[in-house]
Amino acid sequence: MRAALMYQAGDVRIENVPDSTIKHPTDALVRITASCICGSDLHPYHQMTATDGPARMGHELIGVVEEIGSEVTTLKKGDLVVSPFAISDNVCEFCRENLQTSCIHHQAAFWDGIADEGGQAEAVRVPLADGTLVKLPVAPDSALIPSLLTLADVFGTGYHAAKMADVQPGQKVTVVGDGAVGLMAVLSAKRLGAEQIILMGRHRARTDLGREFGATDVVAERGEEGIARVRELTGGHGTHAVLEAVGHMPAYEQAIGVVRPGGVISRVGVPQYEDAPIGFGSLFGRNIHLAGGPAPVRAYIEELMPDILDGTIEPGKVFDAFTDLDGVPAGYRDMDERKSLKVLIRP
Amino acid sequence: MRAALMYQAGDVRIENVPDSTIKHPTDALVRITASCICGSDLHPYHQMTATDGPARMGHELIGVVEEIGSEVTTLKKGDLVVSPFAISDNVCEFCRENLQTSCIHHQAAFWDGIADEGGQAEAVRVPLADGTLVKLPVAPDSALIPSLLTLADVFGTGYHAAKMADVQPGQKVTVVGDGAVGLMAVLSAKRLGAEQIILMGRHRARTDLGREFGATDVVAERGEEGIARVRELTGGHGTHAVLEAVGHMPAYEQAIGVVRPGGVISRVGVPQYEDAPIGFGSLFGRNIHLAGGPAPVRAYIEELMPDILDGTIEPGKVFDAFTDLDGVPAGYRDMDERKSLKVLIRP
Repeated sequence: MRAALMYQAGDVRIENVPDSTIKHPTDALVRITASCICGSDLHPYHQMTATDGPARMGHELIGVVEEIGSEVTTLKKGDLVVSPFAISDNVCEFCRENLQTSCIHHQAAFWDGIADEGGQAEAVRVPLADGTLVKLPVAPDSALIPSLLTLADVFGTGYHAAKMADVQPGQKVTVVGDGAVGLMAVLSAKRLGAEQIILMGRHRARTDLGREFGATDVVAERGEEGIARVRELTGGHGTHAVLEAVGHMPAYEQAIGVVRPGGVISRVGVPQYEDAPIGFGSLFGRNIHLAGGPAPVRAYIEELMPDILDGTIEPGKVFDAFTDLDGVPAGYRDMDERKSLKVLIRP
Repeated sequence: MRAALMYQAGDVRIENVPDSTIKHPTDALVRITASCICGSDLHPYHQMTATDGPARMGHELIGVVEEIGSEVTTLKKGDLVVSPFAISDNVCEFCRENLQTSCIHHQAAFWDGIADEGGQAEAVRVPLADGTLVKLPVAPDSALIPSLLTLADVFGTGYHAAKMADVQPGQKVTVVGDGAVGLMAVLSAKRLGAEQIILMGRHRARTDLGREFGATDVVAERGEEGIARVRELTGGHGTHAVLEAVGHMPAYEQAIGVVRPGGVISRVGVPQYEDAPIGFGSLFGRNIHLAGGPAPVRAYIEELMPDILDGTIEPGKVFDAFTDLDGVPAGYRDMDERKSLKVLIRP
């Protein structure tokens, strides 16, 4: 079968790889009908060394169950399913607390940690299929597929940011970053009732979509100037919740600048740093909370899907480019050059 | 009048200073009947340079109102009052949210930020007296004074740690540090219903008091060994809440080591660092929350005082040494050398 392989930074190729097959009785084999490129895939696209490659890519997917292992009980051949980016048994003590990204089952992993499998491919072996996969009540060619595909990562990740910040009706929220996750964080804050949603981003097409999703204000300025602008928009004190959807240090520093005393910085952008300011002058002195992490999107799928199915929300609007597998290398390049916001792949 | 002055690290003197007097119509002049030395006073005692001295010291006090400014309405001469370590108007938007340490009134400050005033003295001018001071329904020589004095800082600070960690009945909690605040954090976790309270500390007299306050386990080991011991005591995963009551980097690293995925590290030890690990390998990957800051102890006084007045709890047991003003320099030395846990001063 064919799949995307990243050889090193900037070098993505489509090649023939061994067919994915069932290995464990809890696996399912899924023929992929829709997947995509994630903003987080751009981190290795910038940084990966040749010694770490070639690596299979892709961790968001929808597909049709083609075969199930002997212990899979909730799925059958022909089911259309969505897979979160983290494999989980959905029954361990952490999964029951809705922290599927910390599932203790020995086969649990992020997709990027599973050798020889990936979502940017024709098919995939999904471990712990009963826990991981969620059935979709539509056909593979439904117009809702782009929106349903966001349940695999970006929508659930934006929603996690808003939930971990405990966004309440009537609150003021700042979203740092106008990538797909930032825009989903806007939509999520709106869904939770935020009254003022300030989107910090400088790409007009994206911030326009952000306004459509619920942003009340857009701040294009960065750094000290951007912080001053948010403070001006919020009576001087900043916002209670800051949803940080970038992962680079300047975004974190911006979050510190715009958060209100006693507020929460909720991070879902994968941090590209380990050490950062958290002492008296940054978080401690003003009792700022820090929250967030890899989103247990599995926990949110049942909650968020009905709004997609009934057309209340359309998160799939973050996809502004569509391709087959052959177009994946160009898709990485276009996302890297910000010509595309998010690329949907139909293998 | 006489007061304690710190000239530089290791150099505390009792000297004559100008009498405190009313300066603003919202001030009260308080004749101090009980105050104390704080663990946080040891930070300047270790680090202060001569150019920053001499500085007035002390931020926890009980005393008798001797005079009030023309705008003070809730206090009268002769009232016995306790003062939190942070001055606040108790009516601004942050105070109403129980974040008095971020009071926006221009006279609001931590005691240590108010020139020529301090609790280690015969008397003190208290700004924003209506907002800051709380009347005590006992006499100045009551046996309850040591316990009531803990409401000025250490008890409220330990309680803040437990509240910000959202300690729930039945939960497992680790307390890092067996100083006065750590012991108060134990008492607070117990008060909030924690079932297992693991106290990390190595000073037997202190950890014994910790057991009296509610600690179910004591871990004397530090670093990797201490972390392994806590994990062993908690089925391998650590505890949901970790109350960090030290402020030095090794305590923070220990907290990261013993916190459970999805858990909270709640810091009330004043951080002696600015940058620290918060990336994928420390907080982010496991969705660890970071909370805490200077405790708005004013917010907790009414809640905690009844338990002291009716004898349910006796936080004043943290005082194991008593002195007059002349004994203050020796008190610093004894606390620094860990001969005393906490020194109560009767000026």
